Amino acid sequence: MEKVSKEMQQVLHMKGGTEDASYAKNSKLQAGFISRSKPILVQAVVDLCDANLPDCVVIADLGCSSGPNSLLPISEITSIIYKRCSERCRLQPEYMVFLNDLPANDFNTVFKSLIAFQEKMKAQNGQDFGACYVAGVPGSFHGRLFPSKTLHFVHSSSSLHWLSQVPPELTDKENPLINKGKICISKTSSPAVINAYRNQFLKDFSSFLKSRSEEVVSGGRMVLIFAGRITADPSPDESCLTWDYLGLAFQDLVSQGLIEEGKLDTYNTPFYAPYIGDVRGEIENEGSFALDKLVITTFPWDSYGGEKKNNRLTTARAAAKMMRAVNDSMITSHFGDGIMDPLFERFIEIMAADTKEAEHVIPAVSLIRKDR
Amino acid sequence: MEKVSKEMQQVLHMKGGTEDASYAKNSKLQAGFISRSKPILVQAVVDLCDANLPDCVVIADLGCSSGPNSLLPISEITSIIYKRCSERCRLQPEYMVFLNDLPANDFNTVFKSLIAFQEKMKAQNGQDFGACYVAGVPGSFHGRLFPSKTLHFVHSSSSLHWLSQVPPELTDKENPLINKGKICISKTSSPAVINAYRNQFLKDFSSFLKSRSEEVVSGGRMVLIFAGRITADPSPDESCLTWDYLGLAFQDLVSQGLIEEGKLDTYNTPFYAPYIGDVRGEIENEGSFALDKLVITTFPWDSYGGEKKNNRLTTARAAAKMMRAVNDSMITSHFGDGIMDPLFERFIEIMAADTKEAEHVIPAVSLIRKDR
Repeated sequence: MEKVSKEMQQVLHMKGGTEDASYAKNSKLQAGFISRSKPILVQAVVDLCDANLPDCVVIADLGCSSGPNSLLPISEITSIIYKRCSERCRLQPEYMVFLNDLPANDFNTVFKSLIAFQEKMKAQNGQDFGACYVAGVPGSFHGRLFPSKTLHFVHSSSSLHWLSQVPPELTDKENPLINKGKICISKTSSPAVINAYRNQFLKDFSSFLKSRSEEVVSGGRMVLIFAGRITADPSPDESCLTWDYLGLAFQDLVSQGLIEEGKLDTYNTPFYAPYIGDVRGEIENEGSFALDKLVITTFPWDSYGGEKKNNRLTTARAAAKMMRAVNDSMITSHFGDGIMDPLFERFIEIMAADTKEAEHVIPAVSLIRKDR
Repeated sequence: MEKVSKEMQQVLHMKGGTEDASYAKNSKLQAGFISRSKPILVQAVVDLCDANLPDCVVIADLGCSSGPNSLLPISEITSIIYKRCSERCRLQPEYMVFLNDLPANDFNTVFKSLIAFQEKMKAQNGQDFGACYVAGVPGSFHGRLFPSKTLHFVHSSSSLHWLSQVPPELTDKENPLINKGKICISKTSSPAVINAYRNQFLKDFSSFLKSRSEEVVSGGRMVLIFAGRITADPSPDESCLTWDYLGLAFQDLVSQGLIEEGKLDTYNTPFYAPYIGDVRGEIENEGSFALDKLVITTFPWDSYGGEKKNNRLTTARAAAKMMRAVNDSMITSHFGDGIMDPLFERFIEIMAADTKEAEHVIPAVSLIRKDR
């Protein structure tokens, strides 16, 4: 757990509960990332089944958040196993499922949905669906979370683009790098800021792989789905546009005197959409996992879910709700909660008035733990 | 999880959070039960160490609640193992710790205290203290919670006296047994009510043992600490007095017209302090565990913690806070929360005006999973 700054453990979490503003109610985009990556998941799970499936399959979902997406990957993974075992007339295994997120995640809400989940799994699959024991694991996936050689399958979706901390160069108390008027990487960010973000990602992803290499059994599988880039350009619209809208909204609040400029100068988001070349490179450098597959899925700019298509204002509103649910705790812990309404009203105006349409680029990688 | 009624899964939980009225702030009595039972715990853990300690010791605490008591047993168990391994110059093991409670328990509060806990364990013991991986497991311990043959040590304190449901005879919709003016077993309860409670306990404890017998490895240990009786008399003051005070307070609220009599008639608490003869009998009947030790600890009537001794009013106030933190969710889900203040004000008056001083009787049993 020490791998993530204590501050980040408290402030980085999706908005809890099940109210209108919660992540549970505003994460359809992220649900889409999981659903559309299903082919790579199916292949990895089937391969695991066909190799050497244990009597109890131990599965971890890293960055489970709270809401319907918390149990979606587990539901898919166990259903694929059920189907494969049925086809091959094999005894159904038991499952030990670990749902991980940072300690400030709303696990209470996830836990309250478990009885319905377990009933649904039997109803959807069959009454011989294996017993599924579920545990919540609070802690940072940038460090160790599980004993050695215990996991057969690891899944992580919409999580690896979160860094363990804002790059330290930007939070240095004496002489911080200033990412003027921005809250994340942008086209106008200096090379020093961009390098600081990239270095933090490489360090974090390396720690992630090293930790998992200890925990995953030989032959065990990992499927990782995250926001990323197919271009080495660190600031394409695909990864920056929404953050730029939010940065502009912040600047407006500074102009209106609602936020001090210095306060904005010291606020940055620990988010980084990595270049797939870097992801591939780190997997090779670390060396414990073989890259089985890498698939890129793209989603239309207005994929926030449920909204009427081709209506820019409706899309902007849905994007604002998602961005607010994701960033709520980080923004309010830095600025207080008084600015949230005007900030996201401005975000909607800015996004609705713009004409750019950047796709969401979502790489998925399937990895195999090499024999030790 | 299906072993506990869905309703009970939602309403039976200690008062969450860390505010003045929380269980976290009003559970010193229960902390005392753990501390005073330490000798039996030490013996069981040392025996486990001296038999065949694995590289990763898997420990479950069943009914962990939220607050300082959630991590107290784990802190003690792992420290005993650390000390024994140091004495014997053995490599320190890793730990996989499962903290269990019903899904409505406030796991979020427990999880937020984990970083401090892990730092404390290294500071108190030594930097070679083994990595301790902690997971929360929501569900009823009256059913299965873990895969087969996975647990080396099970601990449960102040939990087994909670039944999986109010005995069904008392909740029958057509023709319920009425426990007139009472909310738990009392001297004036009818034999039918008393039998219904006893039968529910025997059924629940049997399910508990059967579930654990599957989960605990051969030679694995269990230490169970709970409110109980050394007498076959089902309603001694030791187990009934506090509930009787609360029943009298409820009757006063009926007299005042704050509660309808019919509403009180249908409210009962799923609490039962078992006779140790019955506990012993069920362990023998189920047959998977050998009873290694049974120790009875008694606590003075005014052991609610922190209060000035020999002041009946102060003790009554502390007892009220503890009873309120324990019963809050059950009472408010049946009666609404408007009655809580007058109810516990009356409780304090009634307890302060009485002169009885009944000890708290706390049996602890140490069990060994027999070879299969």
